[in-house]
This record gives sequence, C-alpha cells and structure tokens, in this order.
Amino acid sequence: MTRYVVGIDLGGTKIATCLMDEEGCIVKKIILPTLASEGPEAVIGRMNASVYEVMKQAKVDRKSILAVGVGSPGPMDSEKGIIKNPPNLPGWIQIPLKNILWDEFKLPIALENDANAAALGENLYGSGKSAKNFMYITVSTGIGGGVVVNGKLFKGANGNAAEIGHTTINFQGPRCGCGNMGCWEAYASGSALARFAGEGIKNGRKTAITEIACDENIKAEHVFTAAKQGDDYAKELVDREGYYLGVGLANMINSFNPDSIAIGGGVTNEWDLFSDRMLEVMEERALKANLENLKVIKATLGSDVGIMGAAAAAWEICRINNE
Amino acid sequence: MTRYVVGIDLGGTKIATCLMDEEGCIVKKIILPTLASEGPEAVIGRMNASVYEVMKQAKVDRKSILAVGVGSPGPMDSEKGIIKNPPNLPGWIQIPLKNILWDEFKLPIALENDANAAALGENLYGSGKSAKNFMYITVSTGIGGGVVVNGKLFKGANGNAAEIGHTTINFQGPRCGCGNMGCWEAYASGSALARFAGEGIKNGRKTAITEIACDENIKAEHVFTAAKQGDDYAKELVDREGYYLGVGLANMINSFNPDSIAIGGGVTNEWDLFSDRMLEVMEERALKANLENLKVIKATLGSDVGIMGAAAAAWEICRINNE
Repeated sequence: MTRYVVGIDLGGTKIATCLMDEEGCIVKKIILPTLASEGPEAVIGRMNASVYEVMKQAKVDRKSILAVGVGSPGPMDSEKGIIKNPPNLPGWIQIPLKNILWDEFKLPIALENDANAAALGENLYGSGKSAKNFMYITVSTGIGGGVVVNGKLFKGANGNAAEIGHTTINFQGPRCGCGNMGCWEAYASGSALARFAGEGIKNGRKTAITEIACDENIKAEHVFTAAKQGDDYAKELVDREGYYLGVGLANMINSFNPDSIAIGGGVTNEWDLFSDRMLEVMEERALKANLENLKVIKATLGSDVGIMGAAAAAWEICRINNE
Repeated sequence: MTRYVVGIDLGGTKIATCLMDEEGCIVKKIILPTLASEGPEAVIGRMNASVYEVMKQAKVDRKSILAVGVGSPGPMDSEKGIIKNPPNLPGWIQIPLKNILWDEFKLPIALENDANAAALGENLYGSGKSAKNFMYITVSTGIGGGVVVNGKLFKGANGNAAEIGHTTINFQGPRCGCGNMGCWEAYASGSALARFAGEGIKNGRKTAITEIACDENIKAEHVFTAAKQGDDYAKELVDREGYYLGVGLANMINSFNPDSIAIGGGVTNEWDLFSDRMLEVMEERALKANLENLKVIKATLGSDVGIMGAAAAAWEICRINNE
C-alpha cells in the first residue's frame, strides 16, 4: 500500500495543502484563501476541509496517511504544538494547533515555523539534497531561515531557531516590525527595498519607479523593473539590496558555518540583478575558513517550498516516532 | 581499571594540559609556556612533553588513556584535524595536528576550536549541566562561542560554527582584526572596551583611567577599576559595554534559540558592573518567544574551562568511536 503524508502551508493570505508520497512527489495540491480576519476557528476549519479535499481528489483513504505537517508563521512552541501570536494571523493567541488537528485526524501532527519547514523541504527535495550543513534563507516580505544538519532541523529550545531576519546588522538602524532596531529584515527584505525607494522619492529622487508603481504602493518588483529599464536610482537601490544581503549572509556563515546556502523567496525572482554584489560583499566580510567549500545558490522549489517543507516535517515526525 | 583522557588547551601564551577521569574530575594539571614565536615544531614538542608529564605526575600508564582532546585557536578543519593559520600562533599554516599527535600517542585525537571545546566543557561539567540547547560565550580579548544541542557540539561544516565575535552588529562600524567591519568583537570585547577608553582619552576626556593605567597600555580592567571608583567616563564606557553585549546577545538568541547561555572570559570577572544593562538591552531587542524560559548566567568553570573543554572533546571522540 502506498503511504502518504499531508503538508499544510498556513500563510496569512492562503492555505496550501498537499498530499505527498514516500518518493517526495506531490500527488495532489489545493489552495484555499486563509481569510485570516475571520479568526482561528474559521481558518482551522478551512485547514481541515483542505485535508479532506486533497484526500478526496486524490482518492486516497485516511488509513494510507501517516502524518500531517504544518508550516506556520511563528512565533510558536513547536514541541508543544502551540501557535503564539503571529503578526499576520490576527486573533491567534496561544492556539494549541497540534492538539486541535490531532482531535480531528487522530494522526501524528508536526508543527514547524514556516521557514524551518521550508529549510527541511529544500534540503530533502530541492537545492540542498547533498548538503550536510544546509541553510535555507527566504527573502520576501520579511527574511526567515532554517538550518538542517545531517537531515535534522536545528530547532533550538522551542522551534524558533534561525529567526535570522531579526538579527541586528546596525544597532542604530531603522525600527523593525519586531520592535528591535536595525534588523537584517529592515534592510534587505522586499519590503525594506520598497520602503527605501519610497523614502528616496519622498526626498525628491527622480526615478521611473514612481511611474511604474503608478497609483499603487511601491513594491520591490517596481524597483526591479525600473532597474532593468536602466533607471539610475533603482539600480542604486538594487545595489544596496545586494550589499545588505551580503552583510547578513556573512553573519550567517560565521554563525552557522554551513556547506550550502539556498536562498528563496520572492526577491530571488530577480537573482541576476543582485547576486553578484551580494556574493562580493559576503566574501569580503565572512571569515575565509568558513567560506571554504561553501556553495550559495538560488533555491529550487519555488512556490511549492511551503507545502513540501510541511510534508517533509510530517515525514520527520514519522521517523522520530519510529525511533 | 580507571580510564582517563588528556585535555590540552593550546593558547597563544600557555599550554595547559590535564588528565581527567570518567567522573569529569581533573586528577592532574600542568601549565607550560607556549613560546609561540619558536614555531609549530617546538610548540608541539612542548604539547607532547606536557602529556607525558601529567601522566608521570599522576602515575597513570599510557594504557589507561583513551583519547587526547585539543582546544586550539581557529580557524581550523576540525574533522581533518588541521590547524589553518591562527593569528596568535605565528608560523602555524595548515598544520595537521591530529595526525602529528596520533603519530606520537597512537590514541584517538579530537581537535576543536577553543570556544567550541569550552562550550562542551561548560555544558558537561559547568553551568550548562541540564541545558539541552546550550550556548557558551567567552568575552575576553575577543569574543567566541559554541553551541551544544543535546550534548553534541554544533560544529558546522568544518568546525568553525559560532564564530560569533565576527558577526556584524553595525555594518559601518570599526574595522575588526578579521578584516570585516563592525563585528560584535570590535564593540564588546575587552580589547574593544580598552580601545574605546583610549580613543576618549585621546579626544580629551578627563578620567581616572589614565592614572590607573599609569604607563601601561589601557586595559579593560583599568576601565572597570575606574568605574568602581565612581569615575564618570569609565561608568559611561562600562554602560556601553553592557549595551553592546546586549545587542549581540539578542542576535544569538534569535539565531540559536538556546534555553541557556553561559558567559565566561575575563570580562565576566566584573559581571556585576555590566550584567544588568546587558540583560535589559537583550530583553528589549530579542524576540519575546525566544526569551521564554531562557537563562543567562555567568559561566562557572573559570580558568579551567579550556582544559575541561578539551577533555570533554576527548570523551566525545570516545563516544563517537564507540557508536
């Protein structure tokens, strides 16, 4: 009998759910809106419904399913399975998701920080396949990451290790959403890039970004588009993006000494625009011994990284339960 | 038959060597000068001699010794047992220390970065005894550290993980000895504290530090002494020391999510002068979820941490070889 796990990628805007087989293939995938404003009960109802729906669509019986893995925004207590109070899941305060899903499915439930789950997914199924000391970094609205050593997630005391977006790269820097000042995320995330662009325009910088964004709020992709059109200010901003990414990468290399780093997230859609600068700054700043034999590459799972990571976490809980 | 391991703490100024029993007790300890300027061959000769000397003094036969552990300044390749080019061991370039010691003693040899070995020692025998996600940080001339998860060292790809002194806390900050700019070590080490004091004095700050240092170069302990005497500028410097330590600690907490951090090294001799400020800044800046159930304490092994860590690394290699 073929065995499967379910992977649920719980995000602020959508719930993506998949059924994965033992070969790591996604046999079915569906996406529902999170509608986070409706609160935890309604959202968890949709998570449950999405699980039944993938099973139905794939014609897979519940008895063939070994575990359910969830990748969720933090902070959380991964071990206890409690989601604490993620900024983009309003009303979620100390939600014992693991117990709630157990009551519904009577299956082992794995709950991981979304970036940690993604790291596990990229390590098992994506760019990090042969890496023993693997680090995954996602650069999109925020910056997150995860570290996987010999196939096992480096979780820390309560599953919140590698909250790398919130490491300070300038203690006098701008205020971050987390309350700290000068976080890496406040300099090098997609949101930060957009914010810097907006600040420059407010201060009178002439740039095609204004026109490209039209009446919308400025986004990172507007800056990248302008840079590709040769706009000077946009090119300057993208150069700074590469610089800030390089500063933080050097910190990661000196902290975690990985043999392989894969970078994913929306900003990496424009990899070619900033990666040279990023790698140059990284090499300037990191310890030489820690750069030896290090590979830094673009992550390969793309938008499936969330569900594949959640499914990887489900396989991991099966492995642990079998030990 | 009682079994022992040898622990060697190879430093820039002294070689400390101990014989440790299975209970973690140091049964004999000797200290020789490194005389590093004489080069690797002479220094390794003294390391060998120190091993024979502890055995002789303890009246312990070579057959009772299971392994030799060495804690050494990095960078290194811990797995291959090669010391690369530590700044304070002149002439040591790609020295295959593990092989050299094997040839001499025909015993399993463990080579670890000194701060990593110290972390293992504090976890096994000192302040971190019950910690599952333990972090040791040493603040003296430089800043180093090590992470131990469930009793195992988090080593990274080549044993250089947790080079935390060289994580940037201000990318525009002062040049560090490693070549990077704005490293934590360049702000919060004992040397940095002394450097800041010297800069202030050069810029005309009136302070008792000048008198206390007399004709010597200013050292961190001169600043602490002046602060204890109520000197305003010294108190300001010590307050900044606490601030910079707190900034970096928050980074460690967000990166490694430890349940326990022990801080050792010379600067912690004056723990009471800076720890309140350090903890206050740490709590302001670290993620709340990562602060839950976290203990931050002064390390307890003191000056024995080096040899006890090296011996712990030796026991660790015995355990691995028995697996």
